[in-house]
Amino acid sequence: MCTAVSFNKKPRLFGRNLDLDRRYAEEAVLMPRNFAYPYASDIKISIKKGGFALFGAATVIGGMPLFYEAVNEYGLFAAGLNFTESACLKDKESGKLNLAPHELIPFVLSSCKDLSEAKRLMQGVNLTHDSVSDEYPAARLHYFFADGGGSLAAEPLSEGLLLTPDPLEVLTNEPPLSFHLKHASMYRALSPSAAPDNLGKASRGAFTSDWVSLGLGAFGLPGDLSSPSRFLRAAFTKLYALEKPTEKEAVNQLFHILASVSMAEGTVRTDLGFEKTVYTSVLSSESLTYYYTTYGDPSIKPIRFSERDLTKNTLVRYPMFDTI
Amino acid sequence: MCTAVSFNKKPRLFGRNLDLDRRYAEEAVLMPRNFAYPYASDIKISIKKGGFALFGAATVIGGMPLFYEAVNEYGLFAAGLNFTESACLKDKESGKLNLAPHELIPFVLSSCKDLSEAKRLMQGVNLTHDSVSDEYPAARLHYFFADGGGSLAAEPLSEGLLLTPDPLEVLTNEPPLSFHLKHASMYRALSPSAAPDNLGKASRGAFTSDWVSLGLGAFGLPGDLSSPSRFLRAAFTKLYALEKPTEKEAVNQLFHILASVSMAEGTVRTDLGFEKTVYTSVLSSESLTYYYTTYGDPSIKPIRFSERDLTKNTLVRYPMFDTI
Amino acid sequence: MCTAVSFNKKPRLFGRNLDLDRRYAEEAVLMPRNFAYPYASDIKISIKKGGFALFGAATVIGGMPLFYEAVNEYGLFAAGLNFTESACLKDKESGKLNLAPHELIPFVLSSCKDLSEAKRLMQGVNLTHDSVSDEYPAARLHYFFADGGGSLAAEPLSEGLLLTPDPLEVLTNEPPLSFHLKHASMYRALSPSAAPDNLGKASRGAFTSDWVSLGLGAFGLPGDLSSPSRFLRAAFTKLYALEKPTEKEAVNQLFHILASVSMAEGTVRTDLGFEKTVYTSVLSSESLTYYYTTYGDPSIKPIRFSERDLTKNTLVRYPMFDTI
Amino acid sequence: MCTAVSFNKKPRLFGRNLDLDRRYAEEAVLMPRNFAYPYASDIKISIKKGGFALFGAATVIGGMPLFYEAVNEYGLFAAGLNFTESACLKDKESGKLNLAPHELIPFVLSSCKDLSEAKRLMQGVNLTHDSVSDEYPAARLHYFFADGGGSLAAEPLSEGLLLTPDPLEVLTNEPPLSFHLKHASMYRALSPSAAPDNLGKASRGAFTSDWVSLGLGAFGLPGDLSSPSRFLRAAFTKLYALEKPTEKEAVNQLFHILASVSMAEGTVRTDLGFEKTVYTSVLSSESLTYYYTTYGDPSIKPIRFSERDLTKNTLVRYPMFDTI
Repeated sequence: MCTAVSFNKKPRLFGRNLDLDRRYAEEAVLMPRNFAYPYASDIKISIKKGGFALFGAATVIGGMPLFYEAVNEYGLFAAGLNFTESACLKDKESGKLNLAPHELIPFVLSSCKDLSEAKRLMQGVNLTHDSVSDEYPAARLHYFFADGGGSLAAEPLSEGLLLTPDPLEVLTNEPPLSFHLKHASMYRALSPSAAPDNLGKASRGAFTSDWVSLGLGAFGLPGDLSSPSRFLRAAFTKLYALEKPTEKEAVNQLFHILASVSMAEGTVRTDLGFEKTVYTSVLSSESLTYYYTTYGDPSIKPIRFSERDLTKNTLVRYPMFDTI
Repeated sequence: MCTAVSFNKKPRLFGRNLDLDRRYAEEAVLMPRNFAYPYASDIKISIKKGGFALFGAATVIGGMPLFYEAVNEYGLFAAGLNFTESACLKDKESGKLNLAPHELIPFVLSSCKDLSEAKRLMQGVNLTHDSVSDEYPAARLHYFFADGGGSLAAEPLSEGLLLTPDPLEVLTNEPPLSFHLKHASMYRALSPSAAPDNLGKASRGAFTSDWVSLGLGAFGLPGDLSSPSRFLRAAFTKLYALEKPTEKEAVNQLFHILASVSMAEGTVRTDLGFEKTVYTSVLSSESLTYYYTTYGDPSIKPIRFSERDLTKNTLVRYPMFDTI
Repeated sequence: MCTAVSFNKKPRLFGRNLDLDRRYAEEAVLMPRNFAYPYASDIKISIKKGGFALFGAATVIGGMPLFYEAVNEYGLFAAGLNFTESACLKDKESGKLNLAPHELIPFVLSSCKDLSEAKRLMQGVNLTHDSVSDEYPAARLHYFFADGGGSLAAEPLSEGLLLTPDPLEVLTNEPPLSFHLKHASMYRALSPSAAPDNLGKASRGAFTSDWVSLGLGAFGLPGDLSSPSRFLRAAFTKLYALEKPTEKEAVNQLFHILASVSMAEGTVRTDLGFEKTVYTSVLSSESLTYYYTTYGDPSIKPIRFSERDLTKNTLVRYPMFDTI
Repeated sequence: MCTAVSFNKKPRLFGRNLDLDRRYAEEAVLMPRNFAYPYASDIKISIKKGGFALFGAATVIGGMPLFYEAVNEYGLFAAGLNFTESACLKDKESGKLNLAPHELIPFVLSSCKDLSEAKRLMQGVNLTHDSVSDEYPAARLHYFFADGGGSLAAEPLSEGLLLTPDPLEVLTNEPPLSFHLKHASMYRALSPSAAPDNLGKASRGAFTSDWVSLGLGAFGLPGDLSSPSRFLRAAFTKLYALEKPTEKEAVNQLFHILASVSMAEGTVRTDLGFEKTVYTSVLSSESLTYYYTTYGDPSIKPIRFSERDLTKNTLVRYPMFDTI
């Protein structure tokens, strides 16, 4: 269970919560321009030599980074989010660009400068049920793509990889984005302002409240941690949270936005135990910085990559520290 | 579980749903001016000879009408509604007007012309745990009183019979009215108008809904049949339902208001089975009419009492017909 | 704004609310087997001589019944419901069965015995933007079809006339049924039973409520009159309302179900004034009866057609009386 | 607008969010045993020489700490929270212990070892409308008191300083605690577990969801930032968040609990601008540590007081750092 958000005009930032009931060995990873990603054979041919560099969080298996989320050097962001019931992975199809789920993020981000290029590229993609190795099942995800100008969801459904514009610039989990957008329309009246006193007006003042509270203008916003409710809360908070001119302030704002949908351990039960927000990240392509907090350490820890890192040919890897 | 409502400027009407999982032998009953209600001894002395006539629904036990709701000839209305957990019935107290729960409605309505008289009278009342006979427990109720000018709740709490002005002119069940009024303040933004598109505005048009629905301005209004939710729904519907100049039209409106909180059999489970809206009534003191529908017959059946009935000294009784 | 519901095992009944801010000249109309419906030319050829009889509510224009809802003699029911934003009406397409929106109900109900036949027939249908005459726009509707075994929605979307199984056997208005079904999943925990006291358990009894209310097990069910909220409330009420063995009792239950989503005049504002539930109908093919109530008269008025009516060749028409 | 919470069995911790649209000069302050708090004259006499030490956040004006929240050396905690409409401050009353609002926390915490002593003491308190100086209005607050064994709210209402046990161990703002506790009963069914599929059962499997989400068992929990909704969300999160055996882990949990009701700048509009969670604090009397985060710096910053600090006679003061 996860939440991804695109925020702020300039610098544009991208962030996500990773909510799980277990830990994988996440690292902050930069995949440089000259890294040879071990794509499945038929892709190898089509990939341009010398792709764009990207960085984000990944589990590295056999030298291959499996990205949770990443941004490339041009500010194109992608995140994978659980989509277990609806994901429809397919057999390879000739005439299509067949990609395993874990290949989508590195392939698109190393190939495309922006969202419109990504959209064009993904129109030819067929997402297959191939996995990174026999030990792992294929990842059942949908994907959030964003750049400085907009966002979309890429969702492997029965009709193919559906690309849906995402004007709310938020994605969580099930069901598909088209549901979340229609659902948000029900909540259109919510606002940070005081709730208008329509009951008082309708009673011509006979009924006057003996108390008020700031914040009642958003009463009705769901507060649970299911994916539709996180979508609404993240979208509302992102829409109204003040944008900021400096990266420091804007990064801080985006961590506050993501806090509104984060999970305290114990409040979401799973078969194995409880989900919690394992990490929260904010990515800036402008400063080549991967900011993160972990469940056990809420301080914002920046990992700053360098221009020189971009030109290497091996992964640049940093551990993500947690203190509990 | 019940709902009582006062509605319309002129003619002022009063109505209620009686929601139960069983039937008592309800009848439409007029208690004339000269009827000698068998009050417990210490009350008998204080009651004025020749009280006011009242009519409503009652179960008659041993010649004594136990009123569910009634209006008197001057347009003062009262209804008793279940209040099981919060009702605090007391021992007799000297210096107080000690009344058994079933005595309150006939005593106040035969003694008082309007709400301000009723309020003054009830300030001296101590509601005791006496019942109509050993076979029955004392009724654990709170009471809705209304006339053409306003409404109040009379609630037997530990501090005594609490009289609370009721500007929303609705009462249901638990908890006390003070809760329902504070609770209604949370829902102050609801209205019959279209929901303002604050999300669209906040996104500067990036997010535009692909559908709309009339009625979304009241999204957030609870739809279940618990007493707090019925209170909110009845209050909202009563506040916004159009008032009407003729009794026929206004009666029809009040039945529609009460329909918004009525119970279909099967949707509220009890220990014994299911609650349903056994009957709905609307009372007019102007035309001396008791209108009712039953669960099995939604046609509005008027029982018209006559001026002559008011002066009798025995109860005027009509059966309430149900067809299923 | 409307709500359609299929209810009860045997006799199976179908019903609907028609919610509008104006009146058309609705009548109860039986279209007999030998009535020559004036279909647009290319349909005329394909229609079987001697179709099945159907009856329901219609406005008759120039001898042509425009059905709001109808059931045929075999118990196949259809209702049209407003679908203004999403309806996508098309140009005529060769190789398809081109039908104007108002032709769909009489064509399918006079041609098909049950839902599976209707489904097969509608797979070839192209719904066009033709209207009954130049004075009227084409009706922007989606359609609820049901028989004794199930229900579906037929929705004219950009991809064609989409047929979606409707296991909740309810339809209201926008957005498409696929949204309403996904939405209902969020409300899966609701029930007529008492709410489990999880807060009390979690606090190991430290927190115990000083009040309870029957019906709290459905707290969270929306109570407003928007189409998504009416869908949820009608679906919940229909699922839990007790089924009944006799037509009289089952008809009564279905009117109670539809009352849970009916509109009191004043509570839903439109550009022209206020919507209200103009009429509510329940249709039985077993007894050939059209039952209805109107806003001004809640008594259930049955219109009983005869076996002989089925074989006529002219419409059998009855006015629908309202008393206000 | 604020939220206070008591959490964890051992070590017991206390925390709060301070939500404001402006900054005061908050500091972390320890008031040692021998500090002479400049109480108004009639109190000075009654105070025991050598009270208990306490520490927390305060604005210090003219050498006098005005505490937002504090814990004493025995683990009795108190926090003041805005209560603007309901607070009823009185004239001095003879025979009562007259205290100005800002005197209540230092007086009770320097006088009482635990909640039962505090309760006994406060039964004689009359909270007056005196302020710290003519420049400031008297603080219109209600107060959360807690120790290792329980919690209560002290609320200045028209009937006096009302002491209400608080089994949910949370306090926010308006209206009085009695409302919040009754209100929480409506949400009793919420839980961290999966939502039971009652709709599926009621439809005997006809309706099966095509998606699920963890967390739906708490669907219905409000997500806005009004005081009643923050109360519910903080209470739910506190009840279910896992307790922890070490201070480090438990402190981290309590910061996560408070994050669930914290405010991103822009989401709650006031007359002056926007509220935000200026600081969040967690207090441990066992380790004499004041932990805090600020809006601009989410790292947990501990301020560790020493045993020696307790015996001083001047305030021990530390600035609270914010980085934006």
